[in-house]
Amino acid sequence: MAFPLSELTSTLRVAPGPIDLGAIETDAAPGFDGEKKDGEAALAELGPGLAELQERLFADGKSGGRRNLLLVLQGMDTSGKGGTLRSTVGLVDPQGVRITSFKAPTPDERAHDFLWRITRALPPVGLIGVFDRSHYEDVLIARVRSLAPPEEIERRYAAINAWEAELAAEGTTIIKCMLHISAEEQKNRLLARLDDDTKHWKYNPGDVDERELWPAYQEAYEIAIARTNTEVAPWHVIPADKKWYRNLAIGTLLHDALQAFDLGWPSADFDVEHEKRRLLDEKPL
Amino acid sequence: MAFPLSELTSTLRVAPGPIDLGAIETDAAPGFDGEKKDGEAALAELGPGLAELQERLFADGKSGGRRNLLLVLQGMDTSGKGGTLRSTVGLVDPQGVRITSFKAPTPDERAHDFLWRITRALPPVGLIGVFDRSHYEDVLIARVRSLAPPEEIERRYAAINAWEAELAAEGTTIIKCMLHISAEEQKNRLLARLDDDTKHWKYNPGDVDERELWPAYQEAYEIAIARTNTEVAPWHVIPADKKWYRNLAIGTLLHDALQAFDLGWPSADFDVEHEKRRLLDEKPL
Repeated sequence: MAFPLSELTSTLRVAPGPIDLGAIETDAAPGFDGEKKDGEAALAELGPGLAELQERLFADGKSGGRRNLLLVLQGMDTSGKGGTLRSTVGLVDPQGVRITSFKAPTPDERAHDFLWRITRALPPVGLIGVFDRSHYEDVLIARVRSLAPPEEIERRYAAINAWEAELAAEGTTIIKCMLHISAEEQKNRLLARLDDDTKHWKYNPGDVDERELWPAYQEAYEIAIARTNTEVAPWHVIPADKKWYRNLAIGTLLHDALQAFDLGWPSADFDVEHEKRRLLDEKPL
Repeated sequence: MAFPLSELTSTLRVAPGPIDLGAIETDAAPGFDGEKKDGEAALAELGPGLAELQERLFADGKSGGRRNLLLVLQGMDTSGKGGTLRSTVGLVDPQGVRITSFKAPTPDERAHDFLWRITRALPPVGLIGVFDRSHYEDVLIARVRSLAPPEEIERRYAAINAWEAELAAEGTTIIKCMLHISAEEQKNRLLARLDDDTKHWKYNPGDVDERELWPAYQEAYEIAIARTNTEVAPWHVIPADKKWYRNLAIGTLLHDALQAFDLGWPSADFDVEHEKRRLLDEKPL
């Protein structure tokens, strides 16, 4: 590996305490000393190793292991949650991944606690679960749009921490990422969608209404991140104006988290030589 | 495209009437005039087009369209259902795919009709659903192992046809494939798993017990295919001893099915110029 990517992982991890998103550059490439072409090459180089680590996790899950991985992606519209998934999760076997895109809750979901639908979407053992939006919407848009009373929002931070701690105790590694773009970059991306007939379907006039609440969203993110940035479920803020850096960062986080499981291949729970003989000595079928 | 792949698709489609699997070569490459390297190149060449067609289907689903695709993969153990998925479905955006691997039904699933759990796993509009095993197990292993009385098995063929016809009428394109390997090739693949420490987790001694029922399974497949090979949900038998051919065949079937939707990009349901002005004229955030 041409670059020490593990440095990148630690750089992106949010330090405990209050956070000022305005002080974090959105078009930087912290922890990576290279240009776009280097970043793309580094991600491509990471691919085969990532695929093998994912297969080891899958094999572990099939063999009695209880571990899995949960990647939570949050970010303003156009921050690139979808593109990130294609570029990073797309490097591993699709059978080992479960992606859930959370939309506004249905009436049925609303009839339960906010964590009910999230719990149902958790990945089984051995899998990589990806949340495109998540329970954090219940303290982000819910706060900005007053979709719940302040005391309920307040309750949710603690509920999230308790829920995530339980999840981690059960064997899930949780990686929470905010894809951090500037308001200017969002404007450019929305305009680019409008300029391209093949992207009109991605554009929703409501996104511009949300955009007008940009400062309120940034504040809601700062509060949510500070209140739920725990040791077992830490937040990462990913400068995301540069798509190549965003992809490399998420790919590296996934890689490092899988590597930290330190999994070998499961050993046989049967007699290998006996099985060979059974096959070699079998009667004609 | 160097080879006329659409010829491949029509070649693989099973003709109406009785089928004799023994007469279909497992190591052939019907409809494709090339070697392994040509086949791999043809699949790689297919990739970008496949990804774009998948995105068009996804966009259609987000814009009121009701179409989707269901790929049903059946085959004996080691026939390569998993490897096929990695090589073909892995070429498109993982967010546009929903893969379900069916195992032995749980007590909860058993308390319902056999199509209940299958129905729950259907892809939403705009998505490609993949079944790794399926409701066909309920007329395959169920028949071979007498897991249901003969009259119930008999009932299921008609139930499957009615269910699939309804699905097709709702807008789902159904592609059913049997990955067809020889008993000899299965033996080689099982032995290869035993010879490779990193593959022991994929080996299950029970697979050899199933193998002893090979002729009964082939007969069950012949009956199931002949009984459920309908115009709206046709069967394809894919010679699968050659992995490169198997992958190219499934990739081509997916490609042709997506292309047959003949989808453009959804047009804007908002005033594009008005939206541009809103963004360009906005007050500072």
